[in-house]
Amino acid sequence: MDLPFPAAAAAATAPDAPLICAVPKGRILKELGPLLTRAGATPAADLLDEDSRRLRFETADPGLEMVRVRPFDVATFVALGAAQIGICGADVLLEFDYDQVYAPLDLGIAQCRISVAEPAETAGQDDPRRWSRVTVATKYPNVTRRHFAARGIQAEIVALSGAMELAPTLGLSRLIVDLVASGATLKANGLIETEVIAPVTSRLIVNRTALKTRPEAIGHWIARFRQAMAAA
Amino acid sequence: MDLPFPAAAAAATAPDAPLICAVPKGRILKELGPLLTRAGATPAADLLDEDSRRLRFETADPGLEMVRVRPFDVATFVALGAAQIGICGADVLLEFDYDQVYAPLDLGIAQCRISVAEPAETAGQDDPRRWSRVTVATKYPNVTRRHFAARGIQAEIVALSGAMELAPTLGLSRLIVDLVASGATLKANGLIETEVIAPVTSRLIVNRTALKTRPEAIGHWIARFRQAMAAA
Repeated sequence: MDLPFPAAAAAATAPDAPLICAVPKGRILKELGPLLTRAGATPAADLLDEDSRRLRFETADPGLEMVRVRPFDVATFVALGAAQIGICGADVLLEFDYDQVYAPLDLGIAQCRISVAEPAETAGQDDPRRWSRVTVATKYPNVTRRHFAARGIQAEIVALSGAMELAPTLGLSRLIVDLVASGATLKANGLIETEVIAPVTSRLIVNRTALKTRPEAIGHWIARFRQAMAAA
Repeated sequence: MDLPFPAAAAAATAPDAPLICAVPKGRILKELGPLLTRAGATPAADLLDEDSRRLRFETADPGLEMVRVRPFDVATFVALGAAQIGICGADVLLEFDYDQVYAPLDLGIAQCRISVAEPAETAGQDDPRRWSRVTVATKYPNVTRRHFAARGIQAEIVALSGAMELAPTLGLSRLIVDLVASGATLKANGLIETEVIAPVTSRLIVNRTALKTRPEAIGHWIARFRQAMAAA
C-alpha cells in the first residue's frame, strides 16, 4: 500500500496556515536579520542561535514562520513545497536549477562569487585553452561541468562538501571551484582565484505551485521584502 | 592533453613524507583530542578551533599531519589517497562502502546510532509489515534503501543534508533516518525513535594502497592508536 503524507502536509498548505519560509544556517542568516526586521518578520531570537535544537520558529508576523536548514537544502524544501518561500544563495539555484523554484527578488545581501582557484605555483603554468580535461574538486559539480564544457574542456569532478582548498595540495585535483567571499581562506591555503564563474547574492525564492494557490500571501511577502530593501 | 596531478601528489606519498590523517569537523573531533594526545599526536591547537581558516595542521609527531574536513568527506579523502589514514564515523563507512578503505580499529568514541524516527502522533498508527513503500528524509540514502529493501519495502528518498527532523511535519516524508546521540533533537522536534538500524562509533580508517606501499608507517599509527585506547 502507498503511504499518504501525514496530515500535517495538508495543514501547512491550508489557505489560512502561516506561510513557511526556509532560511539557510550560517553566513547568509547573519546578514539576513536586519532585513527580516525591516520586513516586519523579526524571528524568534533563537533562530540566530545555531546551537538551538529548534528548527522551526515563529516571527513577529503570525502569517510567517521560519525553518532553518542547510544552505543547499533551502532550494529542496521550497522545490518540494515543504516551504512556500525561502532565502537562498544564487549559487544553490545555479547548481540545482529546480523547475519548481521561481526567484523573483535579488535581496542583494551576502555578496560573494563562485570562482575557479588553483595553487599559486601552478597558476599560469600552461595555457587553459589547450586543456581537454581537468580535475576539479568542488561542491558544485553541475556548475563546474557546464562552465568547462562551454569551452570544450571535460571537468572530472572530485565531489567534496567542504575544505576543497586542500584538494590541489594533496593531489586530488588541479583546480577547485568554490564560493569566495573575502578570498582569505584561499590565501591561507596557498591558492589564487583565477576566474569568476558567477557573482552570487541571496534571492527570495518561491514555490511555483504555492504562487498559484496562495498568490495573495506570497505577493504580500514579496512586496514586504522589496520595501525592506528600499528602506535599507 | 591530460593534466597530470600536481607534483604535490607525489610528494605526499613519498616514503619519508609525513602521513596525512583526515579528521572530521564537529562532534567527533571534540572527543578525539585526548586520544590523539595519548597516541603522541597532539595537534596544533587551532585544529580544534573551527573558525580557523587553516585546514592542514602539524602534530607533536613530525611523521603525522592532520587535515580537517567535513565528516562525510573523510572517507573520500582516504579512499582517493589524499590522506593515508583517517578518523571516521561508522555511519559514513556504511553509507559509502568504499573498496579502497580498510577500517582496522574501532576507537570506541563518539557513540551514537543510525535510527528510524517518526512523529509521535503517527508512530504505531499502522503496521509497517504491510507497507510496500515509504517516504524517508535522510542524508543516508544508501543505508536507508538497503534497510527497507531487506524487508521488502521500497524507500522513496528525500535527500537532505541536515534538519531532516523538519521533513515529517512539513509533509515531505513519513519517516526520517538520521544519526541519533542523546535523542534531544528528535524530542525537541516532536519525533520518536522507532528502530535502531546500526550502532555507530568512530573508526581508524586506512587507504588500502597506502597500507601496501607504506606498511611500516601505517602499522606504527595503528599500534599507537590501539595503545592510546588501552591507556584510556
